Amino acid sequence: MTRRPERLRPWMPHAAQPVYDCRVFSITEHRRRSPRTGELHDFYVLDSPDWVNIIPLTADRQVVMILQYRHGIDEFTLEVPGGMVDEADASPLEAGRREMREETGYDSEDVVPLGVIHPNPAIQNNRCHSFLARDVRLAGPVAFDTTEETEVVLVPLDDVPELIRGGVISHALVVVAFHHLLLKGAG
Amino acid sequence: MTRRPERLRPWMPHAAQPVYDCRVFSITEHRRRSPRTGELHDFYVLDSPDWVNIIPLTADRQVVMILQYRHGIDEFTLEVPGGMVDEADASPLEAGRREMREETGYDSEDVVPLGVIHPNPAIQNNRCHSFLARDVRLAGPVAFDTTEETEVVLVPLDDVPELIRGGVISHALVVVAFHHLLLKGAG
Repeated sequence: MTRRPERLRPWMPHAAQPVYDCRVFSITEHRRRSPRTGELHDFYVLDSPDWVNIIPLTADRQVVMILQYRHGIDEFTLEVPGGMVDEADASPLEAGRREMREETGYDSEDVVPLGVIHPNPAIQNNRCHSFLARDVRLAGPVAFDTTEETEVVLVPLDDVPELIRGGVISHALVVVAFHHLLLKGAG
Repeated sequence: MTRRPERLRPWMPHAAQPVYDCRVFSITEHRRRSPRTGELHDFYVLDSPDWVNIIPLTADRQVVMILQYRHGIDEFTLEVPGGMVDEADASPLEAGRREMREETGYDSEDVVPLGVIHPNPAIQNNRCHSFLARDVRLAGPVAFDTTEETEVVLVPLDDVPELIRGGVISHALVVVAFHHLLLKGAG
């Protein structure tokens, strides 16, 4: 059903050059040749490390979330912990656990993968790995970054569908993590 | 529960300048002052028009999807129709319907909103509007863009959870649209 028909071919690489560095991501201009017309076209791609996010769930089914100022929309959002996979992280799972510890102070050794998606395959080359952390407990202080304004908030898991429906939880990658949780039937 | 505590304040605008134009989006550098430390920091934001996507559903519960080459990951993905809200579009809903017609040839007058999310509030300022089109029928030819390699594929709605779980449907914004469909209990 999703097998690619013969006539559909990928574009052919011709040239690629970095054009702008935005610290947490950079822009590369790719010149590629059309498999259909043979013409060359330029496409911009955001290069960035893989991302992670993680749903920290307490034994009494509360999700440990973060109210956080976000520079893209210049507003506060309600999210689960997440961030970039750093070079020092042993794996995406360890990156997720680190972000959870840093951003909420909660921790658990029971972390399981929920799924992997492409944040935006049209213009980004990276993936986002989602995880579930079960039976999390407060294990230490929040490690505030000087450029982050955040507040930890406990949200009953049963309230999450209504918060998504109402647009209170509005970050696409957070919604994806909860969708994977639902598909897993976990919680 | 999601009320913002007094101590959490947004960053204060100081300066903003466009730094790079990538056609379908551009980059603005925002200099903002921390509400906590008073220091100035720079943040990069992708400016782009709002996006839309739409789940076209036939009377016999088939989703009209598109197998499509994506430059960000240099691979083919399985998606629902979607794109940018153009200035000529009367509304996001009309943009969704237009994209559905152009990319699949299917159409319906019965289009309803599913939800609105932020693709990435950390680095993007736009929103993505999701819609459901019910009882779609083939109404015309696909309008091929010269830079698109696509193939229309009918996928039973009941197969979608397994395709998301297995990573065959991997575009975050497409997963979000199906999550909203699930929350709506529609289909």
